[in-house]
Amino acid sequence: MKTLSIVSVLAVLLSAPSLVVAQNASGSAAQASTYNYVELNKVGDPAEVLEVKVGTRAPLKDGEVRVSVLATPIHPATLLQIAGKYGVDPVLPSTPGNEGVGRVLEVSPQITHLKTGQLVLLTGGSTWSEELVAPATSFIPLPDLGDPSAEVIEQLSMTVVNPLTALLMLNSYADLKEGDWIVQSAANSAVGSYVIQLAKQRGIKTINVVRREGLADELMALGADAVLIDGPDLTEQIAAAAGNAPVVLAIDAVGGDTFTRLVNSLGNGGTVVAYGALSGKAGSLYTPITIFKDIRVRGFWLSKWFEIATMEEKQLALGEIIPLVASGAIKAGVDSRFSISEVKSAVSRAAQGGRNGKVLIVPNKN
Amino acid sequence: MKTLSIVSVLAVLLSAPSLVVAQNASGSAAQASTYNYVELNKVGDPAEVLEVKVGTRAPLKDGEVRVSVLATPIHPATLLQIAGKYGVDPVLPSTPGNEGVGRVLEVSPQITHLKTGQLVLLTGGSTWSEELVAPATSFIPLPDLGDPSAEVIEQLSMTVVNPLTALLMLNSYADLKEGDWIVQSAANSAVGSYVIQLAKQRGIKTINVVRREGLADELMALGADAVLIDGPDLTEQIAAAAGNAPVVLAIDAVGGDTFTRLVNSLGNGGTVVAYGALSGKAGSLYTPITIFKDIRVRGFWLSKWFEIATMEEKQLALGEIIPLVASGAIKAGVDSRFSISEVKSAVSRAAQGGRNGKVLIVPNKN
Repeated sequence: MKTLSIVSVLAVLLSAPSLVVAQNASGSAAQASTYNYVELNKVGDPAEVLEVKVGTRAPLKDGEVRVSVLATPIHPATLLQIAGKYGVDPVLPSTPGNEGVGRVLEVSPQITHLKTGQLVLLTGGSTWSEELVAPATSFIPLPDLGDPSAEVIEQLSMTVVNPLTALLMLNSYADLKEGDWIVQSAANSAVGSYVIQLAKQRGIKTINVVRREGLADELMALGADAVLIDGPDLTEQIAAAAGNAPVVLAIDAVGGDTFTRLVNSLGNGGTVVAYGALSGKAGSLYTPITIFKDIRVRGFWLSKWFEIATMEEKQLALGEIIPLVASGAIKAGVDSRFSISEVKSAVSRAAQGGRNGKVLIVPNKN
Repeated sequence: MKTLSIVSVLAVLLSAPSLVVAQNASGSAAQASTYNYVELNKVGDPAEVLEVKVGTRAPLKDGEVRVSVLATPIHPATLLQIAGKYGVDPVLPSTPGNEGVGRVLEVSPQITHLKTGQLVLLTGGSTWSEELVAPATSFIPLPDLGDPSAEVIEQLSMTVVNPLTALLMLNSYADLKEGDWIVQSAANSAVGSYVIQLAKQRGIKTINVVRREGLADELMALGADAVLIDGPDLTEQIAAAAGNAPVVLAIDAVGGDTFTRLVNSLGNGGTVVAYGALSGKAGSLYTPITIFKDIRVRGFWLSKWFEIATMEEKQLALGEIIPLVASGAIKAGVDSRFSISEVKSAVSRAAQGGRNGKVLIVPNKN
């Protein structure tokens, strides 16, 4: 399972040649200004090993761009990687962070497609910082949004990882048509909420499986057609929710018994796509269901997609997602906001269960 | 799991409108000649419920062809269906039998593409008979083979079900290239032996998993690159056999732990295709392997393929297989031969383990 991290793969997105590993370049500072950033020097519990450092601006090199980070989310995969539990250890020292939104502060003279003041998505990693410097290819220019609200900025900071995962899982494993039924586990996750919203826009019916009470109202408000509590009777619950219509696609982030129940709920030719295994357990699979019902099992990993997708496919997918996020047509819940200097509190909060949204780092919140 | 039986689906192959259900038509007999056939009147243990009957030739109707059956195999799926264990019960009364080879005895005047004396594959079912009458579309004319030996006749009688399964599994789930490694369980089955031979022809390396000692020589002689005994260390055995080269495709007829071990032996992007579950057990599947290694799980069912494949795909596949069988380039072992009147002994033998080949019904063996 030694593979590319999300951080390094996001850099692949636009063929960025390298990551910003640390911004505290010494030497002559262009404007003698300083900024806070998060640094990781050893693998371990994120709340213990992350450090807040002060960087000093250095002059831009050819092709580089300086960006003020406006918002950047804390994704579970990043915390797992910091803890050494993600299959590939982080580069040390490094600044964590997968994605975010920023405003261009300065561009090197060669760069013509980015302007000072422009909003950009951060795709080169190292986003847990008040500022970052990276090659221009690490930034995706956003359409002109005027003076977007703080809420829009926050939503844009979460554009790439979760909405793209939801979009690609909906697009890649089944030819979903209006009125088709799909089912997903961990439906109250960020990916789950995007699945509900994207499906609703297309008239695809979603059956949403969660593991605790009290989430139905929120998910129904997002557009869910049914919300079920996982249990031994899940397959029967799903059939009842769909009125015995065939379920075309199952999206699973839990694994174990939940995976098996989802598999058993699929109609002929249905696909289950796994993108997480929150239970940490293996499911059981009785292969005659793959033979006689032509059930297909797949997995989705965004990092791998970034590795193998063509530039055209990436542009197409982002071109579909960015306007939806920017316009507020799809959104995720935000649990709480922390500054860079509050990063230990931020990662502690992100590690807690029972949240109803993402934890964000919003450098200028104060 | 109520679905079409192999019998009825083979009839779909060439859009035959109906099956020959019983040949003992009463009334004026064309030539007053009689023949033996097997009849099934109730579901149960094949050795008990099958009956040998005597039919009398009736005149052909428009579009019909009369064929002398030269050889027809006993497939496990047919025995399961007779016993009521195949998901769909047999039509009663009926004559069992999925496929075979015959020689045309008589054609109705409208038929111009089949001639008396011509060899044909039997694809309309009801093949456990000395003679059968069916619409011309139930027969596939074979190329002119002169006066083929009894061995060639026997091999041709097994053309459709097992070789086609092997061919389609090799062709449909991975873009196999010369030098690629694949692994299969139940490698000493008829399908397994065809997989070995077809792979060998293409320079594809096979790792062949069996559940008992004493089969290696035979499988190596067919072209196997490695023969392994299943066990808890199977995944490690497979890696060693492949010299740690990635295994691209796993073909599984066992399920349970064997399925899981095969899944774990696959390289990135590998596919496991199940076509049987001899163990009767579910395997366990840890979905992170589908996510991080992009492992895919599929199932293959020949009946379903006949249902959905286009006429062109069917012609292409049969056009590839028939010459290989007719020329002896691929072959299966034959365990024993029985006449129609010995059908109870034939099905008893077919139900025994430890055979090294198919049991055939060869009506004119005596």
